[in-house]
Amino acid sequence: MYEVLSRIHGPEDVKSLDDEELVRLAADIRDALMNRISKAGGHFGPNFGVVEATIALHYVFDSPKDKFVFDVSHQSYPHKILTGRAEAYTNPERFRDVSGYTNPEESEHDFFNVGHTSTSIALASGLAEGRNLLGGHENIIALIGDGALSGGEALEALDYAGSEMKGNFIIVVNDNQQAIAEVHGGLYENLKLLRETDGQAENNLFRAMGLDYVYEAEGNDVLRLIDVFRKVKDIDHPIVVHINTVKGKGYGIAEKNKEAWHYTAPFDPNTGRPAISFGDTERYTDLTAAYLMDKAKKDGSFIVVTPAMPGAAGLTPQMREELGIQYRDVGIAEEQAVAMASGIAKNGGKPVVITAATFMQRAFDQISQDVCINNTPVTIVLNYASVMAMNDVTHLGIYAISAFSNIPNLVVLAPTSGREYRAMLSWAVDQKDHPVMILMPHGRVTDDERTVDGDYSDLNRFKVEQRGSKVAILALGDFYGIGKKVAEAYERRTGIQPTLINPRFASGIDAELLEGLKADHDRIVTLEDGIVDGGFGQKISAFYADSDMKVISYGMEKEFYDRYDSRRLLKDLGIDPEMIAETL
Amino acid sequence: MYEVLSRIHGPEDVKSLDDEELVRLAADIRDALMNRISKAGGHFGPNFGVVEATIALHYVFDSPKDKFVFDVSHQSYPHKILTGRAEAYTNPERFRDVSGYTNPEESEHDFFNVGHTSTSIALASGLAEGRNLLGGHENIIALIGDGALSGGEALEALDYAGSEMKGNFIIVVNDNQQAIAEVHGGLYENLKLLRETDGQAENNLFRAMGLDYVYEAEGNDVLRLIDVFRKVKDIDHPIVVHINTVKGKGYGIAEKNKEAWHYTAPFDPNTGRPAISFGDTERYTDLTAAYLMDKAKKDGSFIVVTPAMPGAAGLTPQMREELGIQYRDVGIAEEQAVAMASGIAKNGGKPVVITAATFMQRAFDQISQDVCINNTPVTIVLNYASVMAMNDVTHLGIYAISAFSNIPNLVVLAPTSGREYRAMLSWAVDQKDHPVMILMPHGRVTDDERTVDGDYSDLNRFKVEQRGSKVAILALGDFYGIGKKVAEAYERRTGIQPTLINPRFASGIDAELLEGLKADHDRIVTLEDGIVDGGFGQKISAFYADSDMKVISYGMEKEFYDRYDSRRLLKDLGIDPEMIAETL
Repeated sequence: MYEVLSRIHGPEDVKSLDDEELVRLAADIRDALMNRISKAGGHFGPNFGVVEATIALHYVFDSPKDKFVFDVSHQSYPHKILTGRAEAYTNPERFRDVSGYTNPEESEHDFFNVGHTSTSIALASGLAEGRNLLGGHENIIALIGDGALSGGEALEALDYAGSEMKGNFIIVVNDNQQAIAEVHGGLYENLKLLRETDGQAENNLFRAMGLDYVYEAEGNDVLRLIDVFRKVKDIDHPIVVHINTVKGKGYGIAEKNKEAWHYTAPFDPNTGRPAISFGDTERYTDLTAAYLMDKAKKDGSFIVVTPAMPGAAGLTPQMREELGIQYRDVGIAEEQAVAMASGIAKNGGKPVVITAATFMQRAFDQISQDVCINNTPVTIVLNYASVMAMNDVTHLGIYAISAFSNIPNLVVLAPTSGREYRAMLSWAVDQKDHPVMILMPHGRVTDDERTVDGDYSDLNRFKVEQRGSKVAILALGDFYGIGKKVAEAYERRTGIQPTLINPRFASGIDAELLEGLKADHDRIVTLEDGIVDGGFGQKISAFYADSDMKVISYGMEKEFYDRYDSRRLLKDLGIDPEMIAETL
Repeated sequence: MYEVLSRIHGPEDVKSLDDEELVRLAADIRDALMNRISKAGGHFGPNFGVVEATIALHYVFDSPKDKFVFDVSHQSYPHKILTGRAEAYTNPERFRDVSGYTNPEESEHDFFNVGHTSTSIALASGLAEGRNLLGGHENIIALIGDGALSGGEALEALDYAGSEMKGNFIIVVNDNQQAIAEVHGGLYENLKLLRETDGQAENNLFRAMGLDYVYEAEGNDVLRLIDVFRKVKDIDHPIVVHINTVKGKGYGIAEKNKEAWHYTAPFDPNTGRPAISFGDTERYTDLTAAYLMDKAKKDGSFIVVTPAMPGAAGLTPQMREELGIQYRDVGIAEEQAVAMASGIAKNGGKPVVITAATFMQRAFDQISQDVCINNTPVTIVLNYASVMAMNDVTHLGIYAISAFSNIPNLVVLAPTSGREYRAMLSWAVDQKDHPVMILMPHGRVTDDERTVDGDYSDLNRFKVEQRGSKVAILALGDFYGIGKKVAEAYERRTGIQPTLINPRFASGIDAELLEGLKADHDRIVTLEDGIVDGGFGQKISAFYADSDMKVISYGMEKEFYDRYDSRRLLKDLGIDPEMIAETL
């Protein structure tokens, strides 16, 4: 086990291996990857595909003097294994030593903490410009794959590199013919053409951008890659090295079903079957998919748009097939998704754009300008907009309310139950007056006895779920359940029934209701599944700022949290029904 | 005067003109443009260059059934002239009838209100997808120029159109070889190559993206253009029509100095000289340029990065030349500018990124992820971050504090004088611990007797400029002057000297100072040059929310204002020293 890998303590050890050992090292790395990912979950396909390229890079170049930037950096596991962090893959007790992305806090071989796609060429171009400024001579290498090339940031950087950069700059395009799902976009057709012509096709995108170019068909052959990288090492201008790799290489099941094996939960390596079953509990993604499929069937003007995140909408390949022209995956291209949706709405369609909250930051300006200034009825659904969702620092959804709810014209809705979520979706899609953003609740669908309105056109009308006195609890979206428990704990302790409010709207306030509370309340609690700064609670504080009403707002701090335990974090922040009731 | 133009009341009138009249119409349109722009200012070069293309488009296609999307829509003046709005160019009394951008409120021939670049292909792709969904058959035409192609949104859309779109879609690339300043990026080298080979070059960028392509060298020949557009009308797939035009065509002075004549203030048509002189009062852009030039000379690791907005930094062509490798214009590509700056900082450089506040929204995610998560010491300077700056709805700077100051790790500084601005710039560039954003004050440099600290590393330390009692006025950045007048008016009325605070930091609060105010103050006023929602004042309200302190926050509403008079708007919002003192 790990015969060669066990001798690798850093990149310098890779350089001394002979051809046979290099091939053996690749097998060892795959064993280590299998060990970790089957037990702890993680990005499978991207890392299995990039094993040989990573070995070859470390064999040829001199990290950390020469600098690698990975994109998406979820394909950096083999790099971590070769740079002193192998135990975090071979030894379960050390799994927690590393994050799932490059991380400068872990190693001098990592330069950026990056989790969003399409960043490597731009970040690396900066390393190169910094080098030029200070007179350095190291190689700067950006490795980009998994559909990341279609993102605006990557394309802007390619364009820049094509004419503006001096000196060494190497862009390795790890072409594994996939994003998370299938790739979309003209440039992927160009990559296909280049593969089919062994890099000789006329109309080479990279050459058209002004870049030098080489092609290597055998991107999982470590010796071939070493040859290629040797040829470009210390080159004096920007060049693209296009390598053809197989996503999931070395594990048949993953090679066959690339989408399912992009990222996987723990599984049995012998069968590929999940180690943990979620059972058949309905999740909010399931509810979303059910709504989308049903609506599409009934309404030919309805269309689903996603920037390469069909999973965020619960859409399986079969469902996408069935949606036909009513489904548009624009590739990793959030700006295009949002702006196109505005055009669709303008020409009579009913578009829903769905992705992860954290990725929607990419389209901040398009939401503001292309959609909201034009007031086009686009519905944007954000998945993972919760402290309970993805907990890598690069993937947090807790900034969504603060970032988006202050954009004029945008109606931001925060549903508190399955029924309410469905009602909000339905209203948003069919109305014609507003751009609407809906924060999909996290996890399993919860429902209770509360009635739900089907019409939200009377904007910023909060819903009083329980009328009481003294204290009013405004519990937004995902945190409604906590608010309800606060109400119960407070009543248990004091005998006084407090008022419990479901604000529903994160982007505005119900001034009439808030004014009315002054009569028999003297204390307000706000709860939201996001940072307090710029968020909902501060709108409530501002409303009462020149009155005698006391307001306490609960939510996250304006901080970058990383790989936290959400239950513990909430406790640390005092977001706990008993603690809040005690404070009151 | 306006012999042909006077007979044009809509696009149908263009269709009935003979060849000679079409040429004459172009001259009439230039006369109308000259009339308006020389008297009222506006985008000169872009509109003079696109006269023939616009006539040909309206001659061949059937607007508004066929739909044009202009990009940047500041090149839509000739389109407005041909669609019933000619008087807004010929008659000074009607100048105010139209905005400087396409505007659906003005005409059924306009589909979007757009002022940011690089949007047309994406928005138009949506119109086409909407058409496909509903079974329509109209032509959809995006016209893109002035450097807009390099923006990520445009590139994402090209990529999408290259493989994913069905049916008619026409992208007119109005190649006038310029952004506001000179163009930068590999794709412009490709356009050059295509011009030089009459469209026949190998490695055609558009063909590489999967798009069909035609080239027309005579982009200011209306008859040639009519031929070209006729050939692509009703085409059944996406195609790029690349036309070679001359920016400023027809006015020699403008053809020769394209950058100065991109946009111009009122001028004398006979000489090209400005009608109004600003005199030699120092403006904040001048101060910025002086700092940048001086710093670059002294520090070889210092570098200025701009996404095609050197004017926002006051940098003339001569200064840029002098900066050499210490100046990088990345083209219209805000994402690249910000991410590259992070890389530069990581590799030892000291980057300053400068552009307009409104355009920096494009890089929201890059600021958050590429810079702030990585905590790289990038300095971002925003010009026009003020209600007193550009007042078109698409160019407002009043959202900057709300949008950016809630991003963790980002230190947002709001200077209140020339001396303070310079001190903040100097500190930000030389420190290594934080990403810093500086809101450049608007207009003329003001200075007073106040002392200024040179060190801001003790974050969120507010500066008490005048210690008083009862009332404390927190006047941020550009609004410090108003705050000072409020203090004077209050003292005059009550005899009580209030406390006047210069917060300096927009992104955090000085809890110790705020706590201390409770002892002898019972009322706080906050003033900021931005919207209140998500802004600075709400942080202050939130701090005092569970205390007896009363807070009133002044700023703009969460609204899209358009072409307002800033003095009047401020009055309407109660942002007036006497009115505020009265309220107190």
